[in-house]
Amino acid sequence: MHDLSVALDAMGGDYGPQVSVPAAKQALNTFPELHILMVGDSAVLEPLLVQHQLQHHSRLRLIHASEVVGMNDKPLVALRSLKDSSMRVALNLVKTGEAKACVSAGNTGALMALSKTILKVLPGIDRPALISALPNLQGGHTYLLDLGANISCDADTLFQFALMGSVMAEEVEGRAFPKIHLLNVGEEEIKGNDQVKQAAQLLSQCQQVNYCGYIEGNDLFSGKADVIVADGFVGNVTLKTCEGLAKLFKQQMISSINHNWFSKLCGWLLKPALKPQLAYMNPDLYNGASLIGLRGIVIKSHGSAQQNAFFNAIGEAIKEIERQVPAQITDKLEAVLLERDC
Amino acid sequence: MHDLSVALDAMGGDYGPQVSVPAAKQALNTFPELHILMVGDSAVLEPLLVQHQLQHHSRLRLIHASEVVGMNDKPLVALRSLKDSSMRVALNLVKTGEAKACVSAGNTGALMALSKTILKVLPGIDRPALISALPNLQGGHTYLLDLGANISCDADTLFQFALMGSVMAEEVEGRAFPKIHLLNVGEEEIKGNDQVKQAAQLLSQCQQVNYCGYIEGNDLFSGKADVIVADGFVGNVTLKTCEGLAKLFKQQMISSINHNWFSKLCGWLLKPALKPQLAYMNPDLYNGASLIGLRGIVIKSHGSAQQNAFFNAIGEAIKEIERQVPAQITDKLEAVLLERDC
Repeated sequence: MHDLSVALDAMGGDYGPQVSVPAAKQALNTFPELHILMVGDSAVLEPLLVQHQLQHHSRLRLIHASEVVGMNDKPLVALRSLKDSSMRVALNLVKTGEAKACVSAGNTGALMALSKTILKVLPGIDRPALISALPNLQGGHTYLLDLGANISCDADTLFQFALMGSVMAEEVEGRAFPKIHLLNVGEEEIKGNDQVKQAAQLLSQCQQVNYCGYIEGNDLFSGKADVIVADGFVGNVTLKTCEGLAKLFKQQMISSINHNWFSKLCGWLLKPALKPQLAYMNPDLYNGASLIGLRGIVIKSHGSAQQNAFFNAIGEAIKEIERQVPAQITDKLEAVLLERDC
Repeated sequence: MHDLSVALDAMGGDYGPQVSVPAAKQALNTFPELHILMVGDSAVLEPLLVQHQLQHHSRLRLIHASEVVGMNDKPLVALRSLKDSSMRVALNLVKTGEAKACVSAGNTGALMALSKTILKVLPGIDRPALISALPNLQGGHTYLLDLGANISCDADTLFQFALMGSVMAEEVEGRAFPKIHLLNVGEEEIKGNDQVKQAAQLLSQCQQVNYCGYIEGNDLFSGKADVIVADGFVGNVTLKTCEGLAKLFKQQMISSINHNWFSKLCGWLLKPALKPQLAYMNPDLYNGASLIGLRGIVIKSHGSAQQNAFFNAIGEAIKEIERQVPAQITDKLEAVLLERDC
């Protein structure tokens, strides 16, 4: 086993090995310590490895798995029927310790169900959550969770999400005592549904977390919060709304610039100034949501991720291995339980 | 009484009469049939009317109300204690028929509670909803409801929202048999919480509504839907997230253009091409959410609305008066009930 070994579910996502193989090559070239365990159908993968001159790479190993979890398969199918799926085999490598993390662009529901069953949740955590970092106006990042792993959440679950988010912001983003907020329809105490109100109470009584109150959707990008907690329904809709709006802006922008030859020229001249700002908002940069709360590191790439985006998901896995995120969450939880016992 | 008389809660919102008086003047100049009943503290309003040369305007009448609902007052305070608030007096004018609609930038919770108590809901409707139109990539608009009037909603309520949204898209936006979607975390049938799944069943059995399935956040602006239905928690967070992201884009854009003298020059030259597209996305244009499901027209302006935005909210009231929205919703409901009885 190597310290920086990552298992890739090479078959998952809309593009499967067409994306995962070149992304793996990019990652091997970028991270000299990285070892990749590439899991999938060897009949499909071998020719692609040859094509990308990876067949003899010293830090890549091909592990055969005969089945694939379809993007529309129900989690139960992935759990009970597909015993040799690339997703399951990749997760098993994390369980046995051969890999330190798993990256998959496959079916989210199946990844969640298989991860829970194979890796198990951390002590004190009821349900894993999907978390991702979004850019903010302060030039930093704000973590948002849950992004859709748990459709309905009670107050305890939201409380646990806050603890896990706090660890992510502290360890991965390097924030001291990160500011935690609950996403709500207003900032006043009386606002919100019962779960959110009760979670606010739990959080304000907890010394281990820097709980800073409710936050509204318009502050998602202001940089006011380091971590924003919501149930999976709200978090998922929020994240996808941002994707849709970003697309609207981009299209409006392009159509404005293509208005006539003069505007095209001005747009072309303005490109060097616009590029770094626009690059900062490129969703590919933020691909790779973590499924946290598990006894192992699992990174969910967007299903439609292209090479660069999938490469960034592998980069996210490396960061979390280096920062030992699951162990840090366990420590945080122990500190909270100790505080409650006092 | 005049056919196009609108009662303004002149004291509501972050800026009160500083915004409502000039916006009223702008509306009177724009709509020659409009009559305004301006409700608020006459000691405050009279000097402003003089300043804006409105004191003798033949289509403006000042109606004194001694109290104001504060932006942080609980709905119960507005209901029980503030018996002479500008918001209440304005709503009473709709009840008595002296005004055909009420526009307020005041406290949303209070406006909702007072509207329900004073105007009452339509037969067959349990709870009013806040609805607004968003621009989409097809160059049209998509209605989103509920925007925060009802934090938790059961399937029946979501079903009623869909009916009301359908009427809005048909009557106000002029869409024939508008496409109705439920906002969800995925498009597959198995996705979502119980309320959403049950609402989908109710809608797919109803011939009166063109129900087209689930929709995800990233399709909010694609123009795929004419109406998108969500509970008030999700709808509110979604709308406010859009506001926050629009601000982020604008700031990134300005900072890119201000990068150096050359980018400033290019940005200035590009302005005529960018302007119509950016204007289309100006949130002021979409100010004025309707509180639908009531026996009268109530328009909620954004609390922070400036003159142009508040003027647009008055324009929205006029549109709904002309299209007789409450009567149309009643007709639609009767048709649905008849269909159920068949």
